[in-house]
Amino acid sequence: MKEYFPDIPKVVYEGPDSDNPFAFTHYNPEEVVAGKTMREHLRFAAPYWHVMRNELSDPFGAGTALMPWDDGTDSLDNALARVPVFFEFLDKIDIDLYCFHDRDIAPEGKTLDETHEIFARVVEELESYQQSTGKSLLWGTACLFGHPRYAHGAATSPSAEVYAYAASQVKHALEATHRLGGTGYVFWGGREGYGSLINTDMKRELDHLGAFLHMAVDHAKKIGFEGQFFIEPKPREPSTHQYDSDAAACLNFLREYDLLEHFQLNIETNHATLAGHTMEHELQTAIGAGALGSIDANRGDELLGWDTDQFPTDIYGTTRVMLEVLKMGGFTKGGLNFDAKRRRESHEPEDLFHAHIGGMDAFARGLKIAAKIIEDGKFSDFIAHRYASFNTGTGAEIESGKASLDSLDAYARGIDAPQLASGRQEYLENLFNRYL
Amino acid sequence: MKEYFPDIPKVVYEGPDSDNPFAFTHYNPEEVVAGKTMREHLRFAAPYWHVMRNELSDPFGAGTALMPWDDGTDSLDNALARVPVFFEFLDKIDIDLYCFHDRDIAPEGKTLDETHEIFARVVEELESYQQSTGKSLLWGTACLFGHPRYAHGAATSPSAEVYAYAASQVKHALEATHRLGGTGYVFWGGREGYGSLINTDMKRELDHLGAFLHMAVDHAKKIGFEGQFFIEPKPREPSTHQYDSDAAACLNFLREYDLLEHFQLNIETNHATLAGHTMEHELQTAIGAGALGSIDANRGDELLGWDTDQFPTDIYGTTRVMLEVLKMGGFTKGGLNFDAKRRRESHEPEDLFHAHIGGMDAFARGLKIAAKIIEDGKFSDFIAHRYASFNTGTGAEIESGKASLDSLDAYARGIDAPQLASGRQEYLENLFNRYL
Amino acid sequence: MKEYFPDIPKVVYEGPDSDNPFAFTHYNPEEVVAGKTMREHLRFAAPYWHVMRNELSDPFGAGTALMPWDDGTDSLDNALARVPVFFEFLDKIDIDLYCFHDRDIAPEGKTLDETHEIFARVVEELESYQQSTGKSLLWGTACLFGHPRYAHGAATSPSAEVYAYAASQVKHALEATHRLGGTGYVFWGGREGYGSLINTDMKRELDHLGAFLHMAVDHAKKIGFEGQFFIEPKPREPSTHQYDSDAAACLNFLREYDLLEHFQLNIETNHATLAGHTMEHELQTAIGAGALGSIDANRGDELLGWDTDQFPTDIYGTTRVMLEVLKMGGFTKGGLNFDAKRRRESHEPEDLFHAHIGGMDAFARGLKIAAKIIEDGKFSDFIAHRYASFNTGTGAEIESGKASLDSLDAYARGIDAPQLASGRQEYLENLFNRYL
Amino acid sequence: MKEYFPDIPKVVYEGPDSDNPFAFTHYNPEEVVAGKTMREHLRFAAPYWHVMRNELSDPFGAGTALMPWDDGTDSLDNALARVPVFFEFLDKIDIDLYCFHDRDIAPEGKTLDETHEIFARVVEELESYQQSTGKSLLWGTACLFGHPRYAHGAATSPSAEVYAYAASQVKHALEATHRLGGTGYVFWGGREGYGSLINTDMKRELDHLGAFLHMAVDHAKKIGFEGQFFIEPKPREPSTHQYDSDAAACLNFLREYDLLEHFQLNIETNHATLAGHTMEHELQTAIGAGALGSIDANRGDELLGWDTDQFPTDIYGTTRVMLEVLKMGGFTKGGLNFDAKRRRESHEPEDLFHAHIGGMDAFARGLKIAAKIIEDGKFSDFIAHRYASFNTGTGAEIESGKASLDSLDAYARGIDAPQLASGRQEYLENLFNRYL
Repeated sequence: MKEYFPDIPKVVYEGPDSDNPFAFTHYNPEEVVAGKTMREHLRFAAPYWHVMRNELSDPFGAGTALMPWDDGTDSLDNALARVPVFFEFLDKIDIDLYCFHDRDIAPEGKTLDETHEIFARVVEELESYQQSTGKSLLWGTACLFGHPRYAHGAATSPSAEVYAYAASQVKHALEATHRLGGTGYVFWGGREGYGSLINTDMKRELDHLGAFLHMAVDHAKKIGFEGQFFIEPKPREPSTHQYDSDAAACLNFLREYDLLEHFQLNIETNHATLAGHTMEHELQTAIGAGALGSIDANRGDELLGWDTDQFPTDIYGTTRVMLEVLKMGGFTKGGLNFDAKRRRESHEPEDLFHAHIGGMDAFARGLKIAAKIIEDGKFSDFIAHRYASFNTGTGAEIESGKASLDSLDAYARGIDAPQLASGRQEYLENLFNRYL
Repeated sequence: MKEYFPDIPKVVYEGPDSDNPFAFTHYNPEEVVAGKTMREHLRFAAPYWHVMRNELSDPFGAGTALMPWDDGTDSLDNALARVPVFFEFLDKIDIDLYCFHDRDIAPEGKTLDETHEIFARVVEELESYQQSTGKSLLWGTACLFGHPRYAHGAATSPSAEVYAYAASQVKHALEATHRLGGTGYVFWGGREGYGSLINTDMKRELDHLGAFLHMAVDHAKKIGFEGQFFIEPKPREPSTHQYDSDAAACLNFLREYDLLEHFQLNIETNHATLAGHTMEHELQTAIGAGALGSIDANRGDELLGWDTDQFPTDIYGTTRVMLEVLKMGGFTKGGLNFDAKRRRESHEPEDLFHAHIGGMDAFARGLKIAAKIIEDGKFSDFIAHRYASFNTGTGAEIESGKASLDSLDAYARGIDAPQLASGRQEYLENLFNRYL
Repeated sequence: MKEYFPDIPKVVYEGPDSDNPFAFTHYNPEEVVAGKTMREHLRFAAPYWHVMRNELSDPFGAGTALMPWDDGTDSLDNALARVPVFFEFLDKIDIDLYCFHDRDIAPEGKTLDETHEIFARVVEELESYQQSTGKSLLWGTACLFGHPRYAHGAATSPSAEVYAYAASQVKHALEATHRLGGTGYVFWGGREGYGSLINTDMKRELDHLGAFLHMAVDHAKKIGFEGQFFIEPKPREPSTHQYDSDAAACLNFLREYDLLEHFQLNIETNHATLAGHTMEHELQTAIGAGALGSIDANRGDELLGWDTDQFPTDIYGTTRVMLEVLKMGGFTKGGLNFDAKRRRESHEPEDLFHAHIGGMDAFARGLKIAAKIIEDGKFSDFIAHRYASFNTGTGAEIESGKASLDSLDAYARGIDAPQLASGRQEYLENLFNRYL
Repeated sequence: MKEYFPDIPKVVYEGPDSDNPFAFTHYNPEEVVAGKTMREHLRFAAPYWHVMRNELSDPFGAGTALMPWDDGTDSLDNALARVPVFFEFLDKIDIDLYCFHDRDIAPEGKTLDETHEIFARVVEELESYQQSTGKSLLWGTACLFGHPRYAHGAATSPSAEVYAYAASQVKHALEATHRLGGTGYVFWGGREGYGSLINTDMKRELDHLGAFLHMAVDHAKKIGFEGQFFIEPKPREPSTHQYDSDAAACLNFLREYDLLEHFQLNIETNHATLAGHTMEHELQTAIGAGALGSIDANRGDELLGWDTDQFPTDIYGTTRVMLEVLKMGGFTKGGLNFDAKRRRESHEPEDLFHAHIGGMDAFARGLKIAAKIIEDGKFSDFIAHRYASFNTGTGAEIESGKASLDSLDAYARGIDAPQLASGRQEYLENLFNRYL
């Protein structure tokens, strides 16, 4: 059998002292942490688009990625030829799950019918490779942002014809996800927003988007798809402003259009910071609404104003993510999808491996540190103690809904001026560092 | 009677060719535009805090403002002495409405009881001046962010005692607003958020905030206050992250805690841009939810990362605001409150006048341009035409809920590839400029 | 003769009341303002790259621009076929000057020799069209950022071979600029910087860049090119950090490498704001060093973190630019190059015209307002008066270098505490608005 | 003797397993790393302003800091009373150096003469405590930004009188620094910039600033002060734009005004990121010009747009700083000054200790990791190899100034198309993590 990465060994755990750049130093898939194996906790997924299709171009320059297996055409043959390369990659990097957009795996045909046929053929190939390798699909999605027809939006396009095209794509992508056993289906609305409000009817567009998502929910029921729907927030880029701008905006939309029971959020670190939030803020916002579903594991550059989609290598960041994941009890239908790409200057195939190894090791370290922090309970004890005045007396009345402005006014006038205890942020930050 | 601004005349409209810096060149209060006088449309309000209490200090330097009427103490006498100065200002600048926080008008006493007594005395003085001058209160609020006791939050404090103090303040501020005939009451949660999530129970804090707002709603009903409650979004500063971070976050919170029928939003330009949104985006978000109540009229500096609270002098900006206000049918219980301050370098009393004149003239120009744009209908016609495919056929089925992924898939497969019409953003921007 | 924009008339001035979207309402080329015609003042140039080559793609989607004259290939024939289209555009939009990168006008060949031959052939075609139309070249440049070979830099590449390739390109682009009578030659270092310092020797790269620019200066002398060299600052994008990050960084570099006498700056509005500066700050920084050469006239979106390259339609902005240009005495070898592109949603050829008309009208208005402001002298009088204490006495000693800490200490101890006059920023902003 | 921090022990090293929050877990002052003790490498300094004078107020709220030793007045007695508290702090936290502004240690008097007398008296007290404790002064400075007289600038004020006041302050602060044995003197120009260019003569202000710094250099020579002058860059806040906006802007200014031989830079992390640069970029820029003098060791919050001055606890950040410091051979007259403050919510005296312990431990870890990285040489080897093509042949000709555009054109045309090696950023980031 042809080998596409002949110089790269299957990556295995060698421990922290390993000098081998193609080894994990912390990710030991079968090691048990907090009651489950690392593999079960982390549920890593690889994205078809970045691994197989990202040419590493940018707005000022052509692609640099060396992809000797790819003939550069939009043919079905080329699409099929990429499949074994991807599965060899999954095997060597030891990642069990993957994600795709319809257009990553299969090109458009001359007509919509032909597009669906080509897509079905590649889905069949993926299914066959899933069966022979044991790899499986985390989630699927439709690319509703790349083609010029979606320049003005897909489910928020001013054209009903474009809207129908988008619906057609989603129908087939959802059915393919179902066929491939995907546990989730994602909506990312890169063109669902506007370039300028000067030519936009925002309210009408949002009504259309609400209707679109309801159709997807109905169709899932019709075909028996029991995977989870996810929405992925991002504030801007490619559009000037996207409607799903952050977790709160998504939740507000889902509540307004009566969709909250059907959707969870797929939160991405780089999108969180582009929206001006920390990743933890977005995760807690989602968790607070019972709506954290999955994570796009990457990292941004906070000094840059666009989506750099870097691999997550900051141990502080991975620890904070895993703290939230552990506290909510782990993933059910979601996972950690590396929505991350190599730098344009890292154009050789082996860079794909360095990049994923770094992300996996960083999350493994984050998992272990987070598990230890939770086990020790110092942070949770501090917080519980900090809010203890709400456990009894007037505080408890507030929480149980028995207090009123009048009752609290009377209470406040009867006590001495409140004395605050320090929030001890610096102490807690030092304590966090001691776990590293 | 003592005159506090002896060198400043009552500001009157002199028309665009006036060379008098103390005249309006565009704000002609009794001029009728789009069916109402400018005075009725614009409903300008002056904020007690910036006009009377802002010393123009910043984190690196002491206050510079010359306030010869103020003895610099926290006494009741000084508080009472400021009242006639403020009403002289309102008279000379020809602004009918004002806004205040409890602590702007009255200092704290040694005990909470004494604080309430001092406050009541100054409210009495304001009431007397309202009656003698015909000026009135747009909205009141309680300052729940200045005192050290609120360093960790007020309605989201970890201390139930602090929470009760905040409730006591709100009770009295709400009752004072009611007594003074205020048409609104605002919540701005500068400390309702966190310095760091490392010591914070975000979900518990939000539950407390929800309970707090329900108490305010209940108390309003109890005392017969029929004014409108407003929440004012801002993403950060003074806290690292405030819960009411933007319009969507506020609406999401209000929906989650079943408060949307009781609250509208008070949108501020500088807070919008700090949250990464244009002012129009925030206004449309609020209007889309039927929840635009009032506006804090100012301007930020988009190259700076803090709330500069500059006076609104950009004609583009004021036009865009007035377009939204006119399209929603004008204010009912809200208005245009100048939450804006002079620069620290503009420390003389006359600068107060220059600043407000500039803001009022800019909004007057914005109103006239917006009225003409709406009257001509070119922009609304363009937009209506752009979405026309949703008025009939498949588009109308989508809007009426009759479409499904299957029906749209069938439709899409039967039509030619959709052709997009240009969004014509540049043309429309040129057209906008032609109205200036 | 074939007409490429058959539906677009030659754009002429029709005055402010014109309803014709294809007319100038303020740009009247032959109207005299402040002693020169608008045409002479504004020296508009069109960029070959945005007009002819920008497909309006973005990182998330394919190009949308309709270019029926372009066969989509990289052939010489196609390159030659674009030339008459461009000159028809220049004619109809009434722009006299243009700018290009070598790779805009001519594709690479299979070898470097072939590349130079193809380039020479297209330059010949441009020369012929210049002669027949009277249009001329403002400046030329080499594209040292698009090809994968420049992914790690051109004059700052770690590879001496790549560096030599870049030098070869510059040699030919400079000679072509000379042949075409260009009055300037620009360096824009989009890849002269780094992705990360982790793999970069910044000092060595800067030394190489200094040597590179000296070679260009020497070559210009050798071939008799008397045009002006320009450097164009930009802080980031495509690189994580570019060395020429803002005007001060460029000047510091030019001083360090003894190049300041040979280079001026080409300042772009969008690059200024991406660096955290206003355009006026960058212009004044350049002018202060005697180094403002030319302007890339566009506009950014300050809420977005990337180069949006929008057309300049903000009258405040164009006025401020023209104030600086007039105060420095106008352009000599530079001009106003529209480094601006239509939005991706504005994909029809006529949008090219709307976009340029808007920019030209906005600059015409800015020119007229700026001329009136300067003529009236109110702002310059205010500033002169504000610094008047430096005209005589101790102030004059400070300016003439006769003061010392001791002499000033003695002086300060002998005077009363200084009293500041207000900076009157609000008054001046209102005054500015009165000119609009 | 009175003890001001009775509950806090002298902080000593207890090693990484210590549970004692008042112990160092990594900072072992006498441990030798890379040839020197940690104490010698790190040269920690405490800032008088944050430790003794920061009340932890912010623009929206009053100070919260508990300072039982401070009577809250501006008296000389109170100023003198703070001195022993500060030296007890230095002793217990085991920091050898400190920094101050004149106004931190001594208040203004009624006249300038009185101000100087009060200042001299406190300087005497500091001198006495230095002698009895062995602590010493890293650098001194004058506060030219706090008093209202400096609202429009100090050395860039439009008032010659204010300029003279500033000169008088600098004279006395410089002499006090000399008397106290300070090894440096800092200029930080928080008001040397502008609120708006609308009322500013930037060029004239910069000329004044240049003259001012020359006077300081002359005065140092006159009094025999051999310490190092430093300029500290920061882009904005409190002003809209400060002239010393980043390292490159400072260097450009110093070169233009012929001051580079007399000044080095004092680089602060939070100021670097506010200017859009990484700390390493600013350090390398300064080092490249031979001008890195000292460091203000803190950390910002990149999601916030103001100077948060947090304590440096990010191990990645401290490692990167120490890599640069070690590579330049360590500090001579500079050090690591903690220009950092506790959060407003951390208002108890013990929080001062947590904060400094965290910063010191983080820098100790950074030092050890950096030393190991340098010792191993993997990163420097990678970089040396990456640029190796410039060591011989054409590359060496480029570096020695023998190449020309013609010679390089000929060379380039004679070689095969260059092939780039990957920049391996991901691999190097993983390698960095392995050192943590």
